[in-house]
Amino acid sequence: MNICKTVEDVRALSTAWHKEGKTIGLVPTMGYLHDGHASLMDIAHRHADKIIVSVFVNPTQFGPNEDLDKYPRDFERDQAVCEAHGVDAIFYPTPQLMYAPDFSTWVHEDSLSQLMCGQSRPIHFRGVCTVCTKLFNISLCDVAVFGKKDAQQALIIRRMVRDLNMPLQIVLAPLVREADGLAMSSRNKYLSAEEHQRALSISKGIFAAQKRYEEGERNADALKRILTESIQKGEGQIDYVVLMDQDTLRPIEQIDRPALLACAAFFGKTRLIDNVFLE
Amino acid sequence: MNICKTVEDVRALSTAWHKEGKTIGLVPTMGYLHDGHASLMDIAHRHADKIIVSVFVNPTQFGPNEDLDKYPRDFERDQAVCEAHGVDAIFYPTPQLMYAPDFSTWVHEDSLSQLMCGQSRPIHFRGVCTVCTKLFNISLCDVAVFGKKDAQQALIIRRMVRDLNMPLQIVLAPLVREADGLAMSSRNKYLSAEEHQRALSISKGIFAAQKRYEEGERNADALKRILTESIQKGEGQIDYVVLMDQDTLRPIEQIDRPALLACAAFFGKTRLIDNVFLE
Repeated sequence: MNICKTVEDVRALSTAWHKEGKTIGLVPTMGYLHDGHASLMDIAHRHADKIIVSVFVNPTQFGPNEDLDKYPRDFERDQAVCEAHGVDAIFYPTPQLMYAPDFSTWVHEDSLSQLMCGQSRPIHFRGVCTVCTKLFNISLCDVAVFGKKDAQQALIIRRMVRDLNMPLQIVLAPLVREADGLAMSSRNKYLSAEEHQRALSISKGIFAAQKRYEEGERNADALKRILTESIQKGEGQIDYVVLMDQDTLRPIEQIDRPALLACAAFFGKTRLIDNVFLE
Repeated sequence: MNICKTVEDVRALSTAWHKEGKTIGLVPTMGYLHDGHASLMDIAHRHADKIIVSVFVNPTQFGPNEDLDKYPRDFERDQAVCEAHGVDAIFYPTPQLMYAPDFSTWVHEDSLSQLMCGQSRPIHFRGVCTVCTKLFNISLCDVAVFGKKDAQQALIIRRMVRDLNMPLQIVLAPLVREADGLAMSSRNKYLSAEEHQRALSISKGIFAAQKRYEEGERNADALKRILTESIQKGEGQIDYVVLMDQDTLRPIEQIDRPALLACAAFFGKTRLIDNVFLE
């Protein structure tokens, strides 16, 4: 497995692979890899010949009061996870490499980014779109895999790729959960045991709403209420509970097209997100 | 010569050329091609095996009170110019093809874009950066050629390519002038004969300032004054006369690094730009 710390290192590999007729799959991550990330690598193998995982805690997607400095990092463990999942190269740049002191160009999706996480994290998706553009251009990837866990992010990236005619395919991968139901996230490690227990109210609410949907419920308020009440029972502090059109991310009242039920809630100081695609 | 009207048409050509080991050069234009554009094609041939010219009057770089509707168009003549200069393919899309009704992703350079033309044309460079990103991604070009005539545009695009790690090289091509000195522009056709004569005050001022620079003058005010007074003599309405650092586009007082003397002025209703790289 190659560890690339510069743009030139990655490009040399990618260019050589393309010359051999191989396709390249990228899995962009912020590291501290868990089974959710590993599932993205496994899915990437189904869509491309060579797999690059980027490990980069991207400063431009964190707000001034967010957890950039304390975001968990463990590169040795990340390497082991990548190795175990047949990854061909890790791109592991420094912030200085990615952002020149006079860096001044941003990619901004200004419709889907406004709602949900965009409301409480105003610069977040601009940072995500910008860093993903850079990673796509550096890796020359033919496919990039994003988890449905970060549903809004995945749908924004898919829109960005369409709008800017980026020459790659976006694959959305299923959300992966802990055995007890909690959606996997690097941020779960912030939770105390007691907070973790209470946070299960999110996935319980998601499952209950999904069951009601499968039984025929199409009213958005009814499904949102199930999720809201479950999180409240777990004493989570709700940031949002929304039910939206998958394409526009605009709220819908009645489900008559592919939809997304999504939420964000705090347990202690930790903000967790979860969702289910209703389609 | 291929005329491509869809993204798929261009991609099929580009992908085939890359498979043959050929490099691709792009010359992005808004059509109504003149000898200035032709010189960009000739220069592109020196840097790439296959040349694509895009002909697209990009609506997103025109402000609400600008000349989008009356911008000159003549595709038959454009074809003839491209044919005569050995162009391999023209990309000639519609606005509908380039911008979906729910288009929502923008590329924005927010430092170099603030000054000069950015002050009187607030959305202009966002439109330019966005459409160039799209054209680079569609054409899969290895090289793109921009004229120094649009100096600020060329320097912003160069910054964008650096910041977003776009996998291509930007070549800056010399400004081309009419026999009488006027910088070539598709907009020159708007000028009456009398306005055209008065507009020569711009190039006269540029030449005079350049001569003084070559004689050793390094004071920005002195050089700007020469250009300003010349345009005033021609009764042009000055938008700006600036002398800047080529990298930052920040004004400098004394020329001790690569600099750019640039101006924009109206003659009648027509806004003209001109410049000289002092280096």
